[in-house]
Amino acid sequence: MIPDPIDTLLEYLRFPTVSTQVGHSDDLEDCAHWLKNLFEKIGLSAAVYPTAGHPIVVARRAPDPQKKTLLIYGHYDVQPAEPLEQWNSPPFEPLLNEREGKIYARGSADNKAPTLAHLLGIASTLEEEGELPLNVIFLLEGEEEIGSPHLETFLREHRHELSADIIVVSDTGMAPGNLPAMTYAMRGVAAMEFLVRGPSSDLHSGLFGGAVANPLSAAARLIASLHDGEGRILVPGFIEDLQPLDPWERELLAAVEKISSTGENALQRLAGVRELVGEAGFSTFERLGARPTIEVNGFGGGYQGEGTKTIIPREAFVKLSFRLVAPQSPQRALQQVEAHLRAHLPRGVSLEIKPGHCGDPYWMDPHSFYGKAAQQALEESFGVAPLLLREGASIPIVASFKKILHLDTLLLGLANPDCGMHSPNENILLKNFFAGIELNKHLLKKLAL
Amino acid sequence: MIPDPIDTLLEYLRFPTVSTQVGHSDDLEDCAHWLKNLFEKIGLSAAVYPTAGHPIVVARRAPDPQKKTLLIYGHYDVQPAEPLEQWNSPPFEPLLNEREGKIYARGSADNKAPTLAHLLGIASTLEEEGELPLNVIFLLEGEEEIGSPHLETFLREHRHELSADIIVVSDTGMAPGNLPAMTYAMRGVAAMEFLVRGPSSDLHSGLFGGAVANPLSAAARLIASLHDGEGRILVPGFIEDLQPLDPWERELLAAVEKISSTGENALQRLAGVRELVGEAGFSTFERLGARPTIEVNGFGGGYQGEGTKTIIPREAFVKLSFRLVAPQSPQRALQQVEAHLRAHLPRGVSLEIKPGHCGDPYWMDPHSFYGKAAQQALEESFGVAPLLLREGASIPIVASFKKILHLDTLLLGLANPDCGMHSPNENILLKNFFAGIELNKHLLKKLAL
Repeated sequence: MIPDPIDTLLEYLRFPTVSTQVGHSDDLEDCAHWLKNLFEKIGLSAAVYPTAGHPIVVARRAPDPQKKTLLIYGHYDVQPAEPLEQWNSPPFEPLLNEREGKIYARGSADNKAPTLAHLLGIASTLEEEGELPLNVIFLLEGEEEIGSPHLETFLREHRHELSADIIVVSDTGMAPGNLPAMTYAMRGVAAMEFLVRGPSSDLHSGLFGGAVANPLSAAARLIASLHDGEGRILVPGFIEDLQPLDPWERELLAAVEKISSTGENALQRLAGVRELVGEAGFSTFERLGARPTIEVNGFGGGYQGEGTKTIIPREAFVKLSFRLVAPQSPQRALQQVEAHLRAHLPRGVSLEIKPGHCGDPYWMDPHSFYGKAAQQALEESFGVAPLLLREGASIPIVASFKKILHLDTLLLGLANPDCGMHSPNENILLKNFFAGIELNKHLLKKLAL
Repeated sequence: MIPDPIDTLLEYLRFPTVSTQVGHSDDLEDCAHWLKNLFEKIGLSAAVYPTAGHPIVVARRAPDPQKKTLLIYGHYDVQPAEPLEQWNSPPFEPLLNEREGKIYARGSADNKAPTLAHLLGIASTLEEEGELPLNVIFLLEGEEEIGSPHLETFLREHRHELSADIIVVSDTGMAPGNLPAMTYAMRGVAAMEFLVRGPSSDLHSGLFGGAVANPLSAAARLIASLHDGEGRILVPGFIEDLQPLDPWERELLAAVEKISSTGENALQRLAGVRELVGEAGFSTFERLGARPTIEVNGFGGGYQGEGTKTIIPREAFVKLSFRLVAPQSPQRALQQVEAHLRAHLPRGVSLEIKPGHCGDPYWMDPHSFYGKAAQQALEESFGVAPLLLREGASIPIVASFKKILHLDTLLLGLANPDCGMHSPNENILLKNFFAGIELNKHLLKKLAL
């Protein structure tokens, strides 16, 4: 029996599953059990696993242990709806706007409609074919919006039950222009803070200026030493393992850049800058997806108030983070930057370095069997060849899947570019939702081959 | 009639003339009138001039309009005494410690004993010689410790009455080792703040990092562009008017540096640094007194809290100030740095510059007639040849005298190096006070020649 897509989606969206707000714990629990029932109704076995936080729902149908296994990940928790006054309709009373072909509700794009498209694609296949062409495991968590604090532990403890051949996640967006896309790479991340210390207290810049090193100047020189004037990273070893981009990748990125350089959602407009600039020798989308960065996220020291205070301050802090591209290692990047900073430290100041969090970069070959299968499924569902995207940001769970389950992830986003994810008036285009159901039917067949 | 030096000093010190505390206004008024009476008692005419703040006392004795005129500047106001619990005796109940040969009280060194030494030197000369060898004008203000807000106006309005040939001020310190000294140069000052602006709001460093200029990196590059790796200022024109130091000046500064490099008050110890560093090619005291600086006083932007926030921040601010050496002009220095910053601005960000306050550098030729006269008076009073000092900090009133009255100032400090000026347990060495009285007697004679 196939549940009605719209009715089921509206029901799903009425659970106010805000994972970060303690008052909604029961709503998350209720939603997990609602999902379990829904899975059972369409013919999957399902269980709700308690965690130290919100529960994880696992569902499966394994017609043949000899067949391939697909693991589908999603999340049923949502971002807070605040600021409520900016919503045109109540965030947990979903509104179907037929003229726009959209449903408005918190969680509609992120991640309930895409999750439900997976489920309904499977239900439809079971209805039409009587059985699935491969084994399927669903893994739906309730803590994605708070950083998945219990997912890695769950993956480690259940890694045998979650054993699979490939993972699919629909928690990214469509390409600019609402074009279908597969994301095949994401940048990793590493963070550090460093302190530059000088005199034991702030000094009078008249009485001491000229004879004592200034920690703010020293910190600025360290930052300036990280790049050349053309935006190239100068940290020894940092970029040395990176492979030159293949011609096909440069062509792909040029195609995405062309689409993203005009109109309301043009990158320059979204960024709010007069000019896009970056590393010499690379296009904007190569810089965003295929090149690492070292960014200064925060810098402070000395007098912060109105007007002037003529001091040589005692210390400065700098917060750095790097975006990394496979095969870079966050730990190695931290070591390389630390060595560079120590080698370039001006005289008369001392340096303290505090490493921060790390996340591995991710890359899968889009021309692999599974990559090509996913692209074929996308083309058959949407009627146009999908774009291939490199994501500049980091999705830590995908790196966790790689690290713990040793599996690649197909990232097939359904969210429309104007979906308002994490913002008021979040919405999903219904044609994306229905195409997503079709996509999942095609995907099962293509992946099973 | 010569007043008793110690009794008069103790009486003077009992006025709690804290100019920044409204509750002491009457004490300042009382003290001004007490000074007027004292001047009249020793044979000078005197008047108390009200200002919009605390009064100014002017006293004069002009035996011969054809003779030279000496203008003596001092202040009768004092710093707040707080923190009171750190005083070993009440700050306005002066304590004579005979074993140490010191009087402890707020204002003892800064500036009541030195002011009184001027007055008593003149009283003594009148007693011994019957008349002064030159005309004398005293100008004592009550707002020095709050930045002399009404002094420039007073100087302009009374510039004809204050017409003189030379000014003497005893509001600096003795040289290290309590050696007599004349300060013949002070650095000027200029301040500016600049803002570097990038995206219209903070951006996600994953989604935009690599394609957008980072204002913190850009600001750091601007700061780094101001100096080479050896501490030399790279701003075009900034140092081009500076004359090379004469061999006699380098010798003088080397002598002061030798005295200041060891012991409890050694510069490195006072600064609380492991190493003194500065512009290549100059000694520490040349850097402090005879070379300009560009210091970063404050720098801020981006995330300032605990941990990490992976953003490209929208803007950065930098607070700069320069110490300037004659013949540098603060206004020209501001223009030169602005031009340099604009020329070095990285792509993709904009720059806003806010000029701040300015103060001219000061220099007088210590080998001029008045300079040599003051040195001879110092040597005759203290029994050793005085040191010649360049002061790294700025004393704005001296630049005001030069600007408005067009007069040089002889800076002849009496404060002992351990006097605790502006700190608890401020004190004056009595031998400095008495030598100061002698100094003033000798000075009148030498200057009158």
